[in-house]
Amino acid sequence: MDIREATRRRFLKQGLTLAGLAVGAQSASAQLSMSDHSHGGELEKIAGHPMAFGTRSRYVNVARSTMSNVGASMFLHGEPMGLDAFTPIGELVGTITPSDLHYVSSHGSVPPDIDPRQHRLVISGMVERPLVFSLDDLMRMPAVTRTHYLECVVNRPTPVGKSLEQMHGMVSCSEWTGVPLSALLNEVGVKAGANWVYAEGAESVRLGNSLPLAKAEDCIVAYGQNGEPVRPHQGYPLRLVTPGFQGKYSVKWLRRLRLVKRPLLNYWERIHYLKVGEGDEGELRGNQGDFYLEQGPKSVITFPAADMRLSGTGYYTIRGLAWSGAGAVRRVEVSIDGGRTWNDAKLDQPALPMAWTRFTAPWTWAGKEATLQSRCTDDKGQVQPTGPEYQKFWAPSGAPHGNAIQPWKVTSEGFVLNAFSEQL
Amino acid sequence: MDIREATRRRFLKQGLTLAGLAVGAQSASAQLSMSDHSHGGELEKIAGHPMAFGTRSRYVNVARSTMSNVGASMFLHGEPMGLDAFTPIGELVGTITPSDLHYVSSHGSVPPDIDPRQHRLVISGMVERPLVFSLDDLMRMPAVTRTHYLECVVNRPTPVGKSLEQMHGMVSCSEWTGVPLSALLNEVGVKAGANWVYAEGAESVRLGNSLPLAKAEDCIVAYGQNGEPVRPHQGYPLRLVTPGFQGKYSVKWLRRLRLVKRPLLNYWERIHYLKVGEGDEGELRGNQGDFYLEQGPKSVITFPAADMRLSGTGYYTIRGLAWSGAGAVRRVEVSIDGGRTWNDAKLDQPALPMAWTRFTAPWTWAGKEATLQSRCTDDKGQVQPTGPEYQKFWAPSGAPHGNAIQPWKVTSEGFVLNAFSEQL
Repeated sequence: MDIREATRRRFLKQGLTLAGLAVGAQSASAQLSMSDHSHGGELEKIAGHPMAFGTRSRYVNVARSTMSNVGASMFLHGEPMGLDAFTPIGELVGTITPSDLHYVSSHGSVPPDIDPRQHRLVISGMVERPLVFSLDDLMRMPAVTRTHYLECVVNRPTPVGKSLEQMHGMVSCSEWTGVPLSALLNEVGVKAGANWVYAEGAESVRLGNSLPLAKAEDCIVAYGQNGEPVRPHQGYPLRLVTPGFQGKYSVKWLRRLRLVKRPLLNYWERIHYLKVGEGDEGELRGNQGDFYLEQGPKSVITFPAADMRLSGTGYYTIRGLAWSGAGAVRRVEVSIDGGRTWNDAKLDQPALPMAWTRFTAPWTWAGKEATLQSRCTDDKGQVQPTGPEYQKFWAPSGAPHGNAIQPWKVTSEGFVLNAFSEQL
Repeated sequence: MDIREATRRRFLKQGLTLAGLAVGAQSASAQLSMSDHSHGGELEKIAGHPMAFGTRSRYVNVARSTMSNVGASMFLHGEPMGLDAFTPIGELVGTITPSDLHYVSSHGSVPPDIDPRQHRLVISGMVERPLVFSLDDLMRMPAVTRTHYLECVVNRPTPVGKSLEQMHGMVSCSEWTGVPLSALLNEVGVKAGANWVYAEGAESVRLGNSLPLAKAEDCIVAYGQNGEPVRPHQGYPLRLVTPGFQGKYSVKWLRRLRLVKRPLLNYWERIHYLKVGEGDEGELRGNQGDFYLEQGPKSVITFPAADMRLSGTGYYTIRGLAWSGAGAVRRVEVSIDGGRTWNDAKLDQPALPMAWTRFTAPWTWAGKEATLQSRCTDDKGQVQPTGPEYQKFWAPSGAPHGNAIQPWKVTSEGFVLNAFSEQL
């Protein structure tokens, strides 16, 4: 395609005010003297500013807000346990979350300090050959790399008083690398009758969760995140990545997998999360329906979003993120009139299964009140519900996902507010 | 697929020695007491180790080696200029290079310390409307996110004495986000007769390069890298990402684009790189053929690789990276006998255009001498050359890529050596 022939609409015409060259093109050319490589006195002065190698610019502020998770029920042996930290999704671009900005929802305020040479993964229970894997063993096996989001079950729009980050910052997306769980199960040989995999972490409170054996097909025993070893707050040296299920199934500091007939429930699950009865030996007398499993289709506009103020009227690109626990994002629609009319947003490609897909939509703001919202459809055909639809159809069935549509109201002064409660 | 029915070959059978549970399955089950959440005395002791939020484990060493680039020709005003830093590609997994580990090849040892509120991108020359863009302007325009490798022209196998990192560590791969260059050119309106885009950075030596206008179609004026703002050593706040061309075309600290009829050459290009004559006003009297442009198909085995030693005989997964400046990687073959026979490696999906594609291949080492090498075919059908083929067919035409096949010799003691010179 010849750029000079392009007939694409120009954003300039749509109200994006760009500065012309005050000095004119002629003079601008003169400024670009090819031989004048000693120019730039201003730049040389500031070039002396010390800057640590590879670090962020001092002008970039992407620090997360963190929240200590010290509710009474979370005390263990009298010590406050737990740390929550949000991903600054409004500050991010693209689909990768930098590893140090991945959300954290953790029992224990400090991750276990694991020496990888000492760490072992034990696979036992209803297997032919119980085995112990060192990190070196796992590194020698075939690996896969896949991009997946992880999201905490608490992440959802709420009626009042929270920022984009506080409502929607418990979700992140990384490139994960490791051994397919199915390959490891193949090594140990799963016995007939085993239906669940109990996965346990090495932190002091020993969190663990049971997932259906069939889900093992797309789980990864991950040692890598975004190209490097998984970081300690994310489960170093091993994390079970369970794509599409709520975050707790992606067990950090993975040390043990046990093949069982019925789901095992540990202390934390019984008392704090599922609040269900149990049978002998901690086995739940139930079926899959008792567990929060696959998450639904979800999207959120990250710009403009709550707590921001538009700098003026004119052209903007609405930006947001979409994902689904059921597969890839097939479509995202954006409404600027509170859901009366919808237009297809543009999806960044490739739209990968159970991964963030970035969407954008053009919007020219004339200075009037507007309500912006997005709606995701996944490749299973599931459509993200409105708040009322969520309350009616999803919540009663114990939805594993707070995936209601998030409306943002833009006031005539350009303030952006959470409008979730207005539709309820 | 039912895991219990799987008939896939077990790696255990192929010589990967895994520990059985010394205590037996029965006892292992006993260790997994569901109610015993107070276990883990050892872990609790080390859990007190202070660990900064989000940082790497203290057991992870992915520090880059850096090399000051202070050859006599690189002095400017009497000061040594330049910094080279390698990406530790042997330590990485997956396809993303963490932003602080991206290779650096730079004039000036410290990047310019640019205030994004002050920074401007000027587009001038043969255009209808010369324009000045602030960062805010660019953020309001439609964005794209694409994964692309960048590679310095010096990156290549050499006959003697260098490590994997020193020969092959001047290449990295990131997810880049920004405005398509074509959209910006559409705003300014390219005049008939303009054939080249001269791109200039804001560092004190004002590096810049000319690229053919047609290439603008897949270039990105990037403000984002791996989900966050581009880091200072990589061009904060703006980098022109020119996928598939040698790294210098991805101009860091981008401040100026000029549309011109014939390629412009700045001081550094004339004196140090191209060493060509010039016409009036710094314009090269030549054509595209005078410039290093699209890079070829390339791959390298990153494990096992030079300077490593295998820990013993048995099963290994050969791992490596492949890429091409011409498009996507279509095929990678691996040879374990010095190129006599080849087998297809497994490619991680998706294999994206002008991006790293991770490949793996199974290998059982019986303790005998072996020569391992990989060969990439891209979706243009181009095949990565051997060293002798490279010398004969690629080098004489001024190939923009040191893309010869890299052979590694494994000695009977398990030492891995650079065998590039043995075939020459």
